[in-house]
Amino acid sequence: MKYVSHYECVLCETRYPKTYTGNTCEQCSDQGILDVIYDYEAMKETVTLQYFKNNPKRSLWRYAPLMSVELNDFSQTLMVGWTPLYRSYKLAKSLNINTLYIKDDGLNPTGSLKDRASVVACMKAIEQNNRIIACASTGNAASSLAGNAARLGLKTVIFVPKRVPKGKLAQLYSYGAEVIKIDGDYREAYALSKSAINTFGWMNRNAAINPHLVEGKKTVALEIAEQLDFNPPDWVVCSVGDGCTIAGVYKGFYDLIQLGLIEKIPRLLGVQSEGCNPIYKAFKYARPLELALENTIADSIAVGIPRNPLKALKAIEASGGAMMSVSDNAILKAGKILSSQEGIFSEPASAAALAGLIKALEQNIITSDERVTIINTGNGLKDTDAYTAQMEEIPLMKNDLETFKEYLQRKGRKL
Amino acid sequence: MKYVSHYECVLCETRYPKTYTGNTCEQCSDQGILDVIYDYEAMKETVTLQYFKNNPKRSLWRYAPLMSVELNDFSQTLMVGWTPLYRSYKLAKSLNINTLYIKDDGLNPTGSLKDRASVVACMKAIEQNNRIIACASTGNAASSLAGNAARLGLKTVIFVPKRVPKGKLAQLYSYGAEVIKIDGDYREAYALSKSAINTFGWMNRNAAINPHLVEGKKTVALEIAEQLDFNPPDWVVCSVGDGCTIAGVYKGFYDLIQLGLIEKIPRLLGVQSEGCNPIYKAFKYARPLELALENTIADSIAVGIPRNPLKALKAIEASGGAMMSVSDNAILKAGKILSSQEGIFSEPASAAALAGLIKALEQNIITSDERVTIINTGNGLKDTDAYTAQMEEIPLMKNDLETFKEYLQRKGRKL
Repeated sequence: MKYVSHYECVLCETRYPKTYTGNTCEQCSDQGILDVIYDYEAMKETVTLQYFKNNPKRSLWRYAPLMSVELNDFSQTLMVGWTPLYRSYKLAKSLNINTLYIKDDGLNPTGSLKDRASVVACMKAIEQNNRIIACASTGNAASSLAGNAARLGLKTVIFVPKRVPKGKLAQLYSYGAEVIKIDGDYREAYALSKSAINTFGWMNRNAAINPHLVEGKKTVALEIAEQLDFNPPDWVVCSVGDGCTIAGVYKGFYDLIQLGLIEKIPRLLGVQSEGCNPIYKAFKYARPLELALENTIADSIAVGIPRNPLKALKAIEASGGAMMSVSDNAILKAGKILSSQEGIFSEPASAAALAGLIKALEQNIITSDERVTIINTGNGLKDTDAYTAQMEEIPLMKNDLETFKEYLQRKGRKL
Repeated sequence: MKYVSHYECVLCETRYPKTYTGNTCEQCSDQGILDVIYDYEAMKETVTLQYFKNNPKRSLWRYAPLMSVELNDFSQTLMVGWTPLYRSYKLAKSLNINTLYIKDDGLNPTGSLKDRASVVACMKAIEQNNRIIACASTGNAASSLAGNAARLGLKTVIFVPKRVPKGKLAQLYSYGAEVIKIDGDYREAYALSKSAINTFGWMNRNAAINPHLVEGKKTVALEIAEQLDFNPPDWVVCSVGDGCTIAGVYKGFYDLIQLGLIEKIPRLLGVQSEGCNPIYKAFKYARPLELALENTIADSIAVGIPRNPLKALKAIEASGGAMMSVSDNAILKAGKILSSQEGIFSEPASAAALAGLIKALEQNIITSDERVTIINTGNGLKDTDAYTAQMEEIPLMKNDLETFKEYLQRKGRKL
């Protein structure tokens, strides 16, 4: 918190002092998401190139001075962040672009980028002597909250809709979360989480409501920049659900501009699935956001009522970026490409980023000489079912070398 | 390969020159697994404490001079190794021991410790201009080979038995492996893989046959030692399937002893499941290994015909260690404890290590003042089904705050 100057409502720009502990703007309520504003002039004295060079921390906490956390003992958290940034050669070649990097955030402790936000939520809870954190989610936000909280001895209450898949419950159950299953859809789970949080005074880890979460998410951009020696790419591509991640990506680069450590903010390409693309439509047609159905296999970005469209839209626009909408089929194809060409197994929501890049290249929105980074936001192990449906049937074979040779020949496999 | 002196058969001790490219001993065939022998006197000049201190590589390649790889450009591999070593406070307290660490190898790129061996197999294939690697496996060895090979542009042929679960195939399919499904059990899949490998001259990544794999696996021990400032624990606990991992753990500490960097090799506690414990029985009753059924939920260590019992038994004995056999029930309980107390989601085969530690504490084989490290060998996301079966039924709840309050009261939940 040392360099936090104040909070500011993204809607009405009302300022709140850094001692303010409310989550949203008092005037604008839930729509009035707060932005953490820093005193960059003061921060500059500490956060220099030298600061990074001498920093031995291999986690997101190397960026603690650029974040809104008060505590400075991070020794007990899960090891979130500082994930690999891979240079891609094969995929770049097949896409006919010169420079492609893949940031693999699926290697975070619970398997997704959401860990960056959840671990910050946990630290804020500890700061505020709040031992219980709650959210409504069926997916990565929930499991990452449950895992990070378990490590720190905090309790979690997770509100899930009726249709939650049993596999996703397994991770929550295992981490010891109190799971409340609502006889209704996500909207109803969210509504009950909200009233319970207000009633019991729990820490709120609902997407976008808590202003500190974006400050955790932005570290993915800080890492991309640092891992490229502060020479960030021309484009950063990531999928968009509620909008918090891409808002965080923008914020990270914005911080580095303010600190004079990079010269430009990469253009952001936000990607949604055709089956649920309210932010895409709002961007493309420059019209107010309309709620959407959630009809896509990319369930981590299937957010019909995004909670942070404003921050997301602002980020994409300010960066001179664009949005793409891609089909489930294109997403599954992209997932297979990422795995088979780069060895990076990604859940469909992550693969959507590559599908969006492919489309943007076709439409000349991104050109082959531009440097591009894709963010892999979630591990493919989170949702193997999505890929099993795609698999061709594998015939049973006798344990017999001749049969095997014939099989290879018949299939024309050149091995 | 710079410091490799020669290879030696673990059975008859015949020596083979470092230029030997066969996998096993010519006299002893498949049972004659080779051990890579180093010239530690020469290695000592380079591999000093200072060498480690100045090493910026955050992957297993920081140990390349201690390994049997010839190439030295590792920039294109997946980022294997240098996984977190967590100090555990809560679990240590509940087990009533002073010092407990957990090495989380489930955070490797494909989700298991096997990546350490697979990436080495891939580098050896490239060295030998072999573009195809094969193995028989249904589990982590297969997926880790497929992922690491995909990243490096190598082809993989995976022989799986008939009963392979569809979910496990999804990862292989996605990585682009050529999957051959045998109308038979694992033994038959293994037999066909062996004759195909011999016929086509593919690189062999079958457990234990390839002497370089243990050299990859040993890096987990090198990391544990280095992450504890070369003051290794009294005990290292890990589960045992075919025996290669625990043999690798021993080898890593053995290397460091030879280099004068540590003073003692930790005692090794090997853990098997009651449903499949041939190495445990051979150890306990000091009798020759007998094949076993594979009847346990811990499928990554369900190895009825272990390929490397000799190296494993030698390692455990030489370390002054012990073996434990634990029930599936104890394994699932341990998995839940690891997740809920430490936020580390582990597959059943990994959780077996904690179950073994608990049993060893009960039997006073390990005492509360000894420093212990558990290795988490595989990510829980690999096998969520194992945990769903355990879950208590969660009742559906109305979206209503009063109902929710009553529910919490009724359950006696203190939130």
